Amino acid sequence: MTKVQKIINDPENIVAEVIDGLVLASHGRLRKLEDAPALLRTDIEPGKVALLVGGGSGHEPMYSAYVGKGLADASVCGNIFASPPPNHIHAATVAADQGKGVLYVYGNYAGDVMNFDMAAEMAAEDGIEVRTVLVNDDVATDRPEDRRGIGGAFYIVKIAGAACAEAQSLDEAEAVVRKAQASTRTIGVALRAGSLPETGEPTFELGEGEIEIGLGVHGEPGVERSALMPADELTEKMIDRLVNDLPFGRGDRVAMLLNNLGATTQMELLIVNRKARQILADKGIEVARTDIGAYFTSQEMAGFSITLIRLDEELERLIEAPCESLPFTQR
Amino acid sequence: MTKVQKIINDPENIVAEVIDGLVLASHGRLRKLEDAPALLRTDIEPGKVALLVGGGSGHEPMYSAYVGKGLADASVCGNIFASPPPNHIHAATVAADQGKGVLYVYGNYAGDVMNFDMAAEMAAEDGIEVRTVLVNDDVATDRPEDRRGIGGAFYIVKIAGAACAEAQSLDEAEAVVRKAQASTRTIGVALRAGSLPETGEPTFELGEGEIEIGLGVHGEPGVERSALMPADELTEKMIDRLVNDLPFGRGDRVAMLLNNLGATTQMELLIVNRKARQILADKGIEVARTDIGAYFTSQEMAGFSITLIRLDEELERLIEAPCESLPFTQR
Repeated sequence: MTKVQKIINDPENIVAEVIDGLVLASHGRLRKLEDAPALLRTDIEPGKVALLVGGGSGHEPMYSAYVGKGLADASVCGNIFASPPPNHIHAATVAADQGKGVLYVYGNYAGDVMNFDMAAEMAAEDGIEVRTVLVNDDVATDRPEDRRGIGGAFYIVKIAGAACAEAQSLDEAEAVVRKAQASTRTIGVALRAGSLPETGEPTFELGEGEIEIGLGVHGEPGVERSALMPADELTEKMIDRLVNDLPFGRGDRVAMLLNNLGATTQMELLIVNRKARQILADKGIEVARTDIGAYFTSQEMAGFSITLIRLDEELERLIEAPCESLPFTQR
Repeated sequence: MTKVQKIINDPENIVAEVIDGLVLASHGRLRKLEDAPALLRTDIEPGKVALLVGGGSGHEPMYSAYVGKGLADASVCGNIFASPPPNHIHAATVAADQGKGVLYVYGNYAGDVMNFDMAAEMAAEDGIEVRTVLVNDDVATDRPEDRRGIGGAFYIVKIAGAACAEAQSLDEAEAVVRKAQASTRTIGVALRAGSLPETGEPTFELGEGEIEIGLGVHGEPGVERSALMPADELTEKMIDRLVNDLPFGRGDRVAMLLNNLGATTQMELLIVNRKARQILADKGIEVARTDIGAYFTSQEMAGFSITLIRLDEELERLIEAPCESLPFTQR
């Protein structure tokens, strides 16, 4: 297999250079933490409940770039596809805390859970209270407790950002983000693997013309391999998996995210959107909001995910609240 | 070479399904024109100078999706990489006109120029005045009159949208968009071709590890082939081509767009951003605003372009003005 070449310098410096690139693109709204690869807002509102996100790099813009007014206050960047270590998370926690505690939102991966939990214990020793909501939206696992955090992270971070901006307490913020978490479901499909930027090697192999449904964003095995099928048939298969999982039903109002995992065109996602809306309308599910783009990638993976989040009045207000960041701004 | 498979249905229906997907994603803000593959705002302000954009499909989100408040009032969608025919442009012109005339903004390609000019003549017979500003930002051509319209189209459409929203007359709108056009320069690079969705065939061939600087968004030949080099070296080469072209110099204030042509990661573009800012700072050019993302694609082409637009007070105000659309919203 041909190695994929990327526009990088020293592979060892990727994360540091990405952070510099984000700080420069923010025009003063973000700063790099001195002693850890983490980004912080320069204008965190004093006294607010802080929101910290993070995880392995290589999924840009998730999580590193979703820092800004109405989104996260800090993001901690691990190496490519690797959790940040506890001391880095801890340093960012201390820097982000405004006296009301810090909410952690990150994906349900064993390494992340271990390291973020350790950082939370270190923060507790400093008198900083931490709560955690794990993103675990991927329905392509047998046991819900094993569910990975994938594209739905965007909606959960968006809602968490708005919730932390207005919450009077960490309790209050945690409760609403937990509701968002419980209302979010995602299913992905891959047509072609992305590659590790350090080596150019693909993260997994698919036969020619083969697709895999339910594949994770690091190439974790999915639930079904088949030949590529027409967009409408594929969309139906994916939406069925979402709707058959809790908690969607007739009369529900949802937001839908079609997330480009890397190399899928917006052209394809718009074709998927058309069919998805027909199917959901037939099921009596109303789509109140649509987001289409590259929100959580796996390098240049060809493929996409569909996320549905069930909205109530509070979640819809929070998802529609203004926010500012390089990858996503909303009036 | 392996054919690239895409998530589509009947290749003949791509454009129609993309338009349906955009209308559905707009949640009532866009409608499809009845007798032509074109999108229109449902809430065009009565009496405004209208802005119409368009060109071949397959470059999503350009041009079709940049329709919305503060952006275009209508977009006309040709087949993949093919100009829309005059009668479709004419129908959209009639639908968009609010009595103050219609400004056309589209890329400088022979087929487009012929068809849009013909549509403008048809509109004149209906008593609708049309003016045209061609996007011709690609510095990778010998003769400026041959310059193609590539990534800089985003800034020109953005400014045109804001200008048409506030202009008292078609003259006034045309003048400011012409200034934006004259201030915009872009250079692209490709590492791997995109493929035609109808056939899966690449639009051109590059040797393994080879890159081409100055390549057009349909695979038109560029100005320099070489082996892939480190990101910093490539960035320097590209920025030099932009800055050596008019009109940038010490003391200038610019906006910079790093446009993903399809399969390039945000990770890579952030690494490029870091170096680009260092080089521009050394040259005394201040970057007032940064946009990074997939604004004008060539299917799943691996590569990107750098656009610089020199700002004066008026252009900066217009580029920062609010706008709403599926791919780009700004507060």
